Order: sequence, then structure tokens, then C-alpha cells
Amino acid sequence: MQPTTPSIISPDIPTPQKSSSPLKLGILASGSGTNFEALVQAIADGKLRAEMPVLIYNKPGAAVAARAQRWGIPAILLDHRKYQSREAFDFDIAQTLSQYGVEWVIMAGWMRRITGVLLDRYPERVINIHPSLLPSFPGLHAVEQALKAGVKITGCTVHIACLEVDSGPILVQAAVPILPDDTPETLHARIQVQEHEILPRAIQIAAMGVGELRK
Amino acid sequence: MQPTTPSIISPDIPTPQKSSSPLKLGILASGSGTNFEALVQAIADGKLRAEMPVLIYNKPGAAVAARAQRWGIPAILLDHRKYQSREAFDFDIAQTLSQYGVEWVIMAGWMRRITGVLLDRYPERVINIHPSLLPSFPGLHAVEQALKAGVKITGCTVHIACLEVDSGPILVQAAVPILPDDTPETLHARIQVQEHEILPRAIQIAAMGVGELRK
Repeated sequence: MQPTTPSIISPDIPTPQKSSSPLKLGILASGSGTNFEALVQAIADGKLRAEMPVLIYNKPGAAVAARAQRWGIPAILLDHRKYQSREAFDFDIAQTLSQYGVEWVIMAGWMRRITGVLLDRYPERVINIHPSLLPSFPGLHAVEQALKAGVKITGCTVHIACLEVDSGPILVQAAVPILPDDTPETLHARIQVQEHEILPRAIQIAAMGVGELRK
Repeated sequence: MQPTTPSIISPDIPTPQKSSSPLKLGILASGSGTNFEALVQAIADGKLRAEMPVLIYNKPGAAVAARAQRWGIPAILLDHRKYQSREAFDFDIAQTLSQYGVEWVIMAGWMRRITGVLLDRYPERVINIHPSLLPSFPGLHAVEQALKAGVKITGCTVHIACLEVDSGPILVQAAVPILPDDTPETLHARIQVQEHEILPRAIQIAAMGVGELRK
């Protein structure tokens, strides 16, 4: 067995502009909230010049809510099961984000499909993170998909969200080698380390102008 | 601009078995033959325990033929335009490879689709190299495809060939970051450096038993 080769992260990482006003990020999260935590930490460490006025979560008891409380960030529960349609759900999300002055929407493990209702309110300002090197393995269970396909390298992608799931202009990617004895759990854990690295960088890049990302 | 991050190569690189007899590799190549050259050099350097009894090329005047001559390796021209069908072409290829005692067939920049005629003669013993991180960007112009898609990381893949183009069990992959000012030419050149690295390793892995690669 060789030692584990390092991950690579695609380049062009801008340094935060001290002069600009901090970005106002609204976070959408469904789960344990490790990406949320990584973002708050990056802000606390001065790596990302941003504020986080609100977290929206959709599952009662999600661990991410407790994390938000520890950081003193308002955590709003919007339960998708209480809505008649995706559009009605997204309308309330967009309303809530606006009320808190959110400029950029970060889907940090948001397990719901978004609609034009949210995208029209935040055009090219919704950012998604996905645990594969897109365009490979979009959709659910990306880590399991990669293991099943037998690829030797996978990774994660941060991109501008659009209506099609896991599509849209790519901001940053990181590559992660698959080890011979990887399980979905061990591989996902290694991918998450990279997610926490690239999400703050991707937000910085997006804030500098997504127009340049479109070919 | 950050310094260029290094490429990563997926792990599990076996060391050559000194006791085993050298692999007999037959090379199929259409172009300039840089992968051919990298393989011969890896053999000369003792990194790959193999022999190369024959090169088959399909384009009169291909630069790979001159490379073979410099190394004293027989270079056989089989021009696909002189055949009525892909099968008839592959029949002559398989016959030629057999005559030279070839055990493993390496498609090192072979721009022809292969058929069951070749695969039946060399079951799970035909190896292909492709300039993308499969399953992303199969088929022609993989480097241009990656640039057009706006991905930030691409790479190359060595895999066991099957009837479907650019499919089959993956042996080794390497990741290559895309730089902001990359052209198809600059990116392809950086991918080729990795191709030359992983092709000999992949052959070694394949020779140790492809059965383990199938999930």
C-alpha cells in the first residue's frame, strides 16, 4: 500500500477584499450541518468576509439547528411537508431570506429540489455543493454511485444552482482518491473534508462575479 | 494566482514482480506515439516488467512508426481504409498480434472503435487510455468537452476496454486541474504528462488480475 496521495483543489482562489462589505449569506441545510459549521468557522477565522444572518432548515430536530444556536445565528424551521407544492415552500424560503437581508443563498446539504420561485428571487445567487466531480454522478447517493462505478478518483463540486439538479456553472472542484478498502462512510468523510475547504472559497469566487464563469 | 496545485494519481500501485515473466504487450497507436514512447521508456527504466514485440499503426506516416524503429520494435501498418468492415480490420489486427506472441493489447491513442473480433481473441486483455476522468466526457474531443463544460478538474483514465466506447473496469485515474488560461493544447499537454505516468502502472495492475477490479 502506498501512502495516500493528497487531494487537489482547482486553483484561482482569490483573497478576500478587505474594502468590500461582507457578503450576507443565507444557509439552507437539511442535515448535520458540517458545511454550515465550516462556513461559520471560515468567517470567524477571517478566511471569508461574510455574515450569516439566518439558517433555514427543513427537518425538525436537525443537528444543524443546534449548531446555529451555539453561534447565535437565527435558525428558522420551514417544514416542506406542510406545503402543498415545491413552489409554495420556496416562496416562504425566499420571503424569509429577504426578511433577513440575505444576498447569497447557500445550499449546504439541502435535500430538496429548488424551483424558479427561489431562483427568480436570487438569480445566479444560489450556490450548491455536491459530493462528486460533476458532471459525473449527479443526483442522490453520489458517493455510492462513484464506488459502484469503480472510479479511482471522485471529489466534490460547488456550483451556481439552476433548475436542473446538480447543474450550473462550476465554481470550484476538489479531487479525492478512492482507496481500495473505502466504504461509503469512509469515502464520504474524506470528501467532506474537501467540501469544507472549497465551499468558502467558492463563495468568494462567486461574489467576485459569476459572469466570468459562463463560457 | 496561486501556484499550480499538484495532480493526484489514485493509489494502489504495485511493484513489479521480479519473478514473473515479462508481459508481452502489443501496442495499437494512431498518432504521434507519446504514450508508446512512455511505455518503452518505462520498460527500459525497469518500472514495467514487459516486452513490446510489435506496434500496429493505422495511418501511413504516423510519427509513432519512426519511434518504434528507433527502439528496434517492428512497426506494422494496417490501414483501416483498406478493409470492408471494422471486423475484417480487427481480424487482421488480432492475427498480427497473435503472430508476435502478444498477451496484452494496449490502445495508446488508437482512434478506431474496436469490435468483438479483437475482444474475443483478447478477453479482458485490451487496455485503453482516455483523456478525461471517466465517466465524464467519453468519446472524441474529451479535452475540449471538459473545457466547454467549465469543469475545474479533469484528468485521464486507463481502463479495460469493452465494446462500448470508453467504458469498462477502471484501472487507474489521475486528476489534472484546469487553469484559468488553459487552451485545449495546454490542457492536453498537462494531461499527457499524467497519461505517461499512469499507463505503465495500469498495465501492472491489470496483469495482477483484473477480476478484483469488478465489483
